[in-house]
Amino acid sequence: MNKAYDIIALGETLLRLTPPDLQRLDQSAGFDVQVGGCESNTLSAMARLGLNCAWLSRLPENELGDRVRQSLRQHNVDVQHVSPGGDDRLGLYFYEPGRAPHRSQVIYDRADSAMARMQPADLPVALFQPGRARLFHTSGITLGLSASACATAQQALQLALEAGIPCSLDINYRQRLWSPQRARLCLEPLLGQLDLLLVAERDIQALWPEAWDAHCHERTLRRFQRWAPNSLLVMTRGSAGAALLTPAGELHQTDAFSAQEVERLGGGDAFAAGFLSAWLAGKSHSEALRQGAAVAAFKYATPGDIAWINRSQLDRLLADPAATGLCR
Amino acid sequence: MNKAYDIIALGETLLRLTPPDLQRLDQSAGFDVQVGGCESNTLSAMARLGLNCAWLSRLPENELGDRVRQSLRQHNVDVQHVSPGGDDRLGLYFYEPGRAPHRSQVIYDRADSAMARMQPADLPVALFQPGRARLFHTSGITLGLSASACATAQQALQLALEAGIPCSLDINYRQRLWSPQRARLCLEPLLGQLDLLLVAERDIQALWPEAWDAHCHERTLRRFQRWAPNSLLVMTRGSAGAALLTPAGELHQTDAFSAQEVERLGGGDAFAAGFLSAWLAGKSHSEALRQGAAVAAFKYATPGDIAWINRSQLDRLLADPAATGLCR
Amino acid sequence: MNKAYDIIALGETLLRLTPPDLQRLDQSAGFDVQVGGCESNTLSAMARLGLNCAWLSRLPENELGDRVRQSLRQHNVDVQHVSPGGDDRLGLYFYEPGRAPHRSQVIYDRADSAMARMQPADLPVALFQPGRARLFHTSGITLGLSASACATAQQALQLALEAGIPCSLDINYRQRLWSPQRARLCLEPLLGQLDLLLVAERDIQALWPEAWDAHCHERTLRRFQRWAPNSLLVMTRGSAGAALLTPAGELHQTDAFSAQEVERLGGGDAFAAGFLSAWLAGKSHSEALRQGAAVAAFKYATPGDIAWINRSQLDRLLADPAATGLCR
Amino acid sequence: MNKAYDIIALGETLLRLTPPDLQRLDQSAGFDVQVGGCESNTLSAMARLGLNCAWLSRLPENELGDRVRQSLRQHNVDVQHVSPGGDDRLGLYFYEPGRAPHRSQVIYDRADSAMARMQPADLPVALFQPGRARLFHTSGITLGLSASACATAQQALQLALEAGIPCSLDINYRQRLWSPQRARLCLEPLLGQLDLLLVAERDIQALWPEAWDAHCHERTLRRFQRWAPNSLLVMTRGSAGAALLTPAGELHQTDAFSAQEVERLGGGDAFAAGFLSAWLAGKSHSEALRQGAAVAAFKYATPGDIAWINRSQLDRLLADPAATGLCR
Amino acid sequence: MNKAYDIIALGETLLRLTPPDLQRLDQSAGFDVQVGGCESNTLSAMARLGLNCAWLSRLPENELGDRVRQSLRQHNVDVQHVSPGGDDRLGLYFYEPGRAPHRSQVIYDRADSAMARMQPADLPVALFQPGRARLFHTSGITLGLSASACATAQQALQLALEAGIPCSLDINYRQRLWSPQRARLCLEPLLGQLDLLLVAERDIQALWPEAWDAHCHERTLRRFQRWAPNSLLVMTRGSAGAALLTPAGELHQTDAFSAQEVERLGGGDAFAAGFLSAWLAGKSHSEALRQGAAVAAFKYATPGDIAWINRSQLDRLLADPAATGLCR
Amino acid sequence: MNKAYDIIALGETLLRLTPPDLQRLDQSAGFDVQVGGCESNTLSAMARLGLNCAWLSRLPENELGDRVRQSLRQHNVDVQHVSPGGDDRLGLYFYEPGRAPHRSQVIYDRADSAMARMQPADLPVALFQPGRARLFHTSGITLGLSASACATAQQALQLALEAGIPCSLDINYRQRLWSPQRARLCLEPLLGQLDLLLVAERDIQALWPEAWDAHCHERTLRRFQRWAPNSLLVMTRGSAGAALLTPAGELHQTDAFSAQEVERLGGGDAFAAGFLSAWLAGKSHSEALRQGAAVAAFKYATPGDIAWINRSQLDRLLADPAATGLCR
Repeated sequence: MNKAYDIIALGETLLRLTPPDLQRLDQSAGFDVQVGGCESNTLSAMARLGLNCAWLSRLPENELGDRVRQSLRQHNVDVQHVSPGGDDRLGLYFYEPGRAPHRSQVIYDRADSAMARMQPADLPVALFQPGRARLFHTSGITLGLSASACATAQQALQLALEAGIPCSLDINYRQRLWSPQRARLCLEPLLGQLDLLLVAERDIQALWPEAWDAHCHERTLRRFQRWAPNSLLVMTRGSAGAALLTPAGELHQTDAFSAQEVERLGGGDAFAAGFLSAWLAGKSHSEALRQGAAVAAFKYATPGDIAWINRSQLDRLLADPAATGLCR
Repeated sequence: MNKAYDIIALGETLLRLTPPDLQRLDQSAGFDVQVGGCESNTLSAMARLGLNCAWLSRLPENELGDRVRQSLRQHNVDVQHVSPGGDDRLGLYFYEPGRAPHRSQVIYDRADSAMARMQPADLPVALFQPGRARLFHTSGITLGLSASACATAQQALQLALEAGIPCSLDINYRQRLWSPQRARLCLEPLLGQLDLLLVAERDIQALWPEAWDAHCHERTLRRFQRWAPNSLLVMTRGSAGAALLTPAGELHQTDAFSAQEVERLGGGDAFAAGFLSAWLAGKSHSEALRQGAAVAAFKYATPGDIAWINRSQLDRLLADPAATGLCR
Repeated sequence: MNKAYDIIALGETLLRLTPPDLQRLDQSAGFDVQVGGCESNTLSAMARLGLNCAWLSRLPENELGDRVRQSLRQHNVDVQHVSPGGDDRLGLYFYEPGRAPHRSQVIYDRADSAMARMQPADLPVALFQPGRARLFHTSGITLGLSASACATAQQALQLALEAGIPCSLDINYRQRLWSPQRARLCLEPLLGQLDLLLVAERDIQALWPEAWDAHCHERTLRRFQRWAPNSLLVMTRGSAGAALLTPAGELHQTDAFSAQEVERLGGGDAFAAGFLSAWLAGKSHSEALRQGAAVAAFKYATPGDIAWINRSQLDRLLADPAATGLCR
Repeated sequence: MNKAYDIIALGETLLRLTPPDLQRLDQSAGFDVQVGGCESNTLSAMARLGLNCAWLSRLPENELGDRVRQSLRQHNVDVQHVSPGGDDRLGLYFYEPGRAPHRSQVIYDRADSAMARMQPADLPVALFQPGRARLFHTSGITLGLSASACATAQQALQLALEAGIPCSLDINYRQRLWSPQRARLCLEPLLGQLDLLLVAERDIQALWPEAWDAHCHERTLRRFQRWAPNSLLVMTRGSAGAALLTPAGELHQTDAFSAQEVERLGGGDAFAAGFLSAWLAGKSHSEALRQGAAVAAFKYATPGDIAWINRSQLDRLLADPAATGLCR
Repeated sequence: MNKAYDIIALGETLLRLTPPDLQRLDQSAGFDVQVGGCESNTLSAMARLGLNCAWLSRLPENELGDRVRQSLRQHNVDVQHVSPGGDDRLGLYFYEPGRAPHRSQVIYDRADSAMARMQPADLPVALFQPGRARLFHTSGITLGLSASACATAQQALQLALEAGIPCSLDINYRQRLWSPQRARLCLEPLLGQLDLLLVAERDIQALWPEAWDAHCHERTLRRFQRWAPNSLLVMTRGSAGAALLTPAGELHQTDAFSAQEVERLGGGDAFAAGFLSAWLAGKSHSEALRQGAAVAAFKYATPGDIAWINRSQLDRLLADPAATGLCR
Repeated sequence: MNKAYDIIALGETLLRLTPPDLQRLDQSAGFDVQVGGCESNTLSAMARLGLNCAWLSRLPENELGDRVRQSLRQHNVDVQHVSPGGDDRLGLYFYEPGRAPHRSQVIYDRADSAMARMQPADLPVALFQPGRARLFHTSGITLGLSASACATAQQALQLALEAGIPCSLDINYRQRLWSPQRARLCLEPLLGQLDLLLVAERDIQALWPEAWDAHCHERTLRRFQRWAPNSLLVMTRGSAGAALLTPAGELHQTDAFSAQEVERLGGGDAFAAGFLSAWLAGKSHSEALRQGAAVAAFKYATPGDIAWINRSQLDRLLADPAATGLCR
């Protein structure tokens, strides 16, 4: 008998290149190298917390693909189901952190990547069977990558539904990938089928302006529920915390944990990791929101895309958010 | 026919050596290496904004001189008119950034440098002809470097005046180079001939205390006008912004743009770059002041002496100073 | 005739390994390497200020021990009296700085080190003679390291008393080394013999909760005097400054100097350096407290365990705490 | 049903600290950080070649232990059976590469480490069942670490024998751990039970001088067979290649592959990886020897302890050892 | 009147990413960043030697494109005629240096780059006029990049011919870009029109095996002349030197200069720089060959793609190839 | 009573700036920082071997001067007698290592340094008393630095002679400092008064060509003795070893020890350290030569100017020059 994964997630992971020490992209003599991707960031943090996680994607069969495999395995994410992408290219992005008035900047170079060429047939169907996974997760990025990536994600959702595996989606709207119109056209038919839907407040504003209320985020969330009436709806609000609305209309909220920002990238993915881990552990909605906020806070205080934590650090923060100082 | 430069500027550029990561000068195992100099910092930012800039100076004919040439060419500053300095030494300085109570510190080692040995005869006279340049610029540093550098700068101003080329001076008082008395003796006879005069409020306080009013910077500026009655007078005030007084007594002001300080060095040079670029483009006095403040803000947020920007970043800040966040 | 040391101090110095750039201990590809130890940090800063300092300890006779010797000699601390530790191991610690909600963390690996194996017989008795030293200093860490280190420190105090050398102790409680009970059992018999006793307010709270008053630090200090009635009692309070109580019940206080924190480690040791230097120079209690606070402020603004300063920087701060800006 | 491992191996993995750029241990400002250990080096290379590998050991439950776990998982070594070592210390070593006349130097600091405290009861007995593993592997280092590590390794060999799992030992004599006398006393009773025995020629010289023949390595090997009459006996000879003697007295040999040495450490472990992988794949003795030599050659040309290779690189070398140049 | 360029060259320049210190691509925490491209490497070295060089290409209008512009300007290559590539991607490559048995490896990621999308209409026709340039140069790489790049290069050759500008081609066969068949089909019609043709002996072997003679390179060269009867034919032979055949059948040869290899990449481009500089200066065929070999030797001893030299270094080597030692 | 130094030496120590990783001086983003100087290099190695060494010089009173003090103290060189140089500049040099055909290059920038301004009156006369020092040492560099440095060195030699302190000179000819004519004029009157004279064979060729015999170094040495008839004459010959001629005409020779060159700089100074240490220890001429060659070999294998060794490494090499391999 095969083991059941707590979560399987489908998406792209990119090579990330960053100039060190706040230098500009055309100024530094070297780049720091990391890997990052919405779903794998979430899985990495969840695996660090002890969950059993598998990542579905497509990678080139060279040292660059190996680099991604190694990075995720390091956190204990299972990459054995990744589809071989031959000589395809690895998507990448350049991240230039900026202090005001410089704005942090991302230059994506992901077109025609191995993942963008993934096909429904590349999915490991054996995983989409009853009892093989407790949750399927993907994001709007995967749906927006390319026609074939979109078909692959739709197929995965369909297979999960058929196998009775709950489904989760993180909207994660990327204006460089698609227009609000195209995004809505693709996303809306899927929203009704999701058990869990995570969305940033700013993405509601960008995609569903008719739902957005500048003065009352609760109204925004309740209006938006029209598009996902069957989902547990989680809306992240950055430093303003997060809110959750049940299909029954019950509202839960959390404040953000205070954090000294080292690097903001990956905060939403970290929130998802904390929230989904708690949800899978059967914690209450409020506890799950709070755990999401806690993992996001750790991420903000950590260099790189990933919430580089362990269970004991998280438990300590949840138990005593105000504790500071050095233990000697 | 030869091309007309938007600006030609005369001054010294030094090798800059900085211990990384806030280490002390006697603590670090290596130094970051950059080049910096008042006039070339200004030219570099202006060239990055698309202006046609030539730098006049004198450099050793070795790899250290080449390093300066390469750094400036990188930003598209024309260095072909630089005078060959044989085996002379390259001036240098050690910059030790400090967090309070440490004070940032500069140790200059520029005595007897190639530029300090520049002679009037080393000037490229062909450039000081009508129509060859739209502005000549130099600083009080160049005048204070050495007797021969002073004579060279005076000669350059004279040649520019004769050719009908407008002249600009950035006072940039350096107490390590000369006393207030010596500085005034040299500077005052020149001030009446300048079209543009840039001066930091603290330099008015240091050199012309009789003009300085601790409580009213406008009064300071109006009093100081006595020494430069024919110039567009620009007074920079750090985080308090900048003010401009026309010969006719018209006052313009700008606030500073908010900036998260990465490194303060070079802010005044960056202001000059923004202001002079706008002035050369025929923008209004207010717009020019504001552009000066904007380029200075970018500089404060950038490591090194130079405002490492491009035109589109600047336009974005001027159009929408409050915009933040990451474009994805 | 042999020279008289201003201070001789007994303690352990460890190799310190730190991941750079706020990376986590399991994230970075390299570690910065430094050395640090309570007493030698204090001596290093005092030697930088011009005092004649000798360090007593035990070190392995290999390149790691040499590294410690070299680091201390660099600051002009005399290490010739260090006892040879053969093939013993050098104690070390891993320091992981953290931004909230990460907490800075220290992982000690000092058990069974060369210093923990030091014996009373390893002490250089020739130093413990009248006129050979003006002060003997050690810390609670040395007493808590091991039974033999404790016996060695007790013996050193005894020898100093017999030779008429004043004695100073910095409590420096480390919960990883011993429990409050064990610490009190060892420390209390010694306190009555000390001329100088330095203690952090938080250590009074941890070890002598019956003396601690959450609302009034003066009361805490006066209550604590019961255990050290003959000592000049100095209580450091971090950003709240420091207070001193004389055996006669006279109270002196100082505010902390404002500092932009680069690294907090070593602040207490730096305070001791400033205070003891002033005390040895015969300055007033208030001046000594203030000098302690000043050296601590420099430390907070400096990477590493040691207040990397010189006399002129310190004098400048004491003379004009509000001065800022760059001298050019 | 649980999966069968190709190999399970028991041993210690240490944190390795190396000064960069051929600096001395007391000269560099930082250390490169890696992890290394005889058995895990072998497993890492085997996992990179596609084998299913589990590592048995004991690690502290902190970020340093996590660092080891992450490093091995990166190569796809299964670390789930590692025993939790609480607050025990992680063994470490300082490696100082040297160019002649400097000799490369290792300073071990591994006494009383988590692994040295491992007990037989810490072994995952469920793995020592028929069909759960195709090979058990350990080294003389593990046997020499401490009494309890020795008992643990003896117990593991016993359990493997009982479960019908073939056993392999790499002698790997370390004079810093034990004397030849103590090593022989411990090792000799075990040798008769091994299926595979790997030994460096220099270790035969050091431990069994009566078997060693300076002029004829074949004779050395045949003489040494007396102590391990039932084992496939593999003797590595550095740049002179390797030889294998079957219980039946059949001799096989291989030359070394030419390699430009980047770092020699880990060559023997890499040889074991190549040899054991081939042996498990049922290749001939000659092919297995040759594959061992090939993986060792890659190791010599790679920084760090581990043969950082993949299957296609290895196949290419085996197919065409003389190929050079850059494929573009 | 516009200035005449000594050489204008058309080609692609890529971002180059290299793991430092002989680490593998999936091993290092950072990459060194440089830019490299066949034609711009040649131009950079020629500009360093004092020639007036313009580079024709197409670049994205972002910081990555700026990085290329800055790097080339640094060496004094004129980039003002580069065509704006909007949001197109910058081609890039990963270079992994290897010590045997590792083979150095290049992973190209250049498909669909800004340059691959260049169109004939993007060429600066004003440069292809009589007297505007003394030589046009391109390579087989440019022809193999894409259909539109090929058309652009063909158009450039046509324009140059019409303007009476001599033409030079460096074959530079890249098997990753096209097959020998496709390459010959494209190249052969052009060869008859070239004034200068540079080709590596191994490229003759790969593309025109019928011309290649394993035992006699002179025969290879004479046979190959059939395809380029009107060109000065230069065949580079790596460490075996180079040979030149005139249309009249006159043969010249040079040995290679001895070099300690730091990095081999870019050697052919450096040879071209040295040869073409000498040819443009009217030196003899033998002198030109020898200068090509000299610049290539400097390149081998220099990190990066570019022969980072100056005129005086080159003259010194040509004058006294055997001189060694340090001038103090 | 004051302690007697084994050696006191007078000379200049410079800040050394080196581009890492074989980059060129105008290529690297940072410089490695070290300090180096002929006499202090010799003292540093001698102090590392346990001798009691004092350095005489003049240093600026700022962090750069402190850097030199700290570096030398690290090796246990006594710097308390260094003369305060106020705001004078620290001499410096840029060292660019090169692989052939690049030649390693030094760019000196030492004119008008603090040491070049040292006066005879700055000498610590109290040291030049009978019994205060066992040897005085300086070099031709010190004599060639400036008129006042020359007068200072001459005065020091005179004081030493008067106090009966033996004198040693290392010729160390620097063509960048003075011509052969000037050097001879200054040096020759001093040679007759020296107890020890060290000279590189290439310096005899440069300064005393009439003594130099290309085919027989013994003849060179015997001829050269005419200028220093009373000295123990030591001639270093790089990889050819060294020779010694006594005033009585007795010849001793040593081979060089084999070394893998990491950095050649400082080899002669290291030789002097080894030789003088042995001479002071009363070893035989042959042993002293051999120890000089051994320390030089260590230096060649070490980055930086200084033979970063200890006594046990040296003893091991002298006892067993052929030993290799790693002790584990």
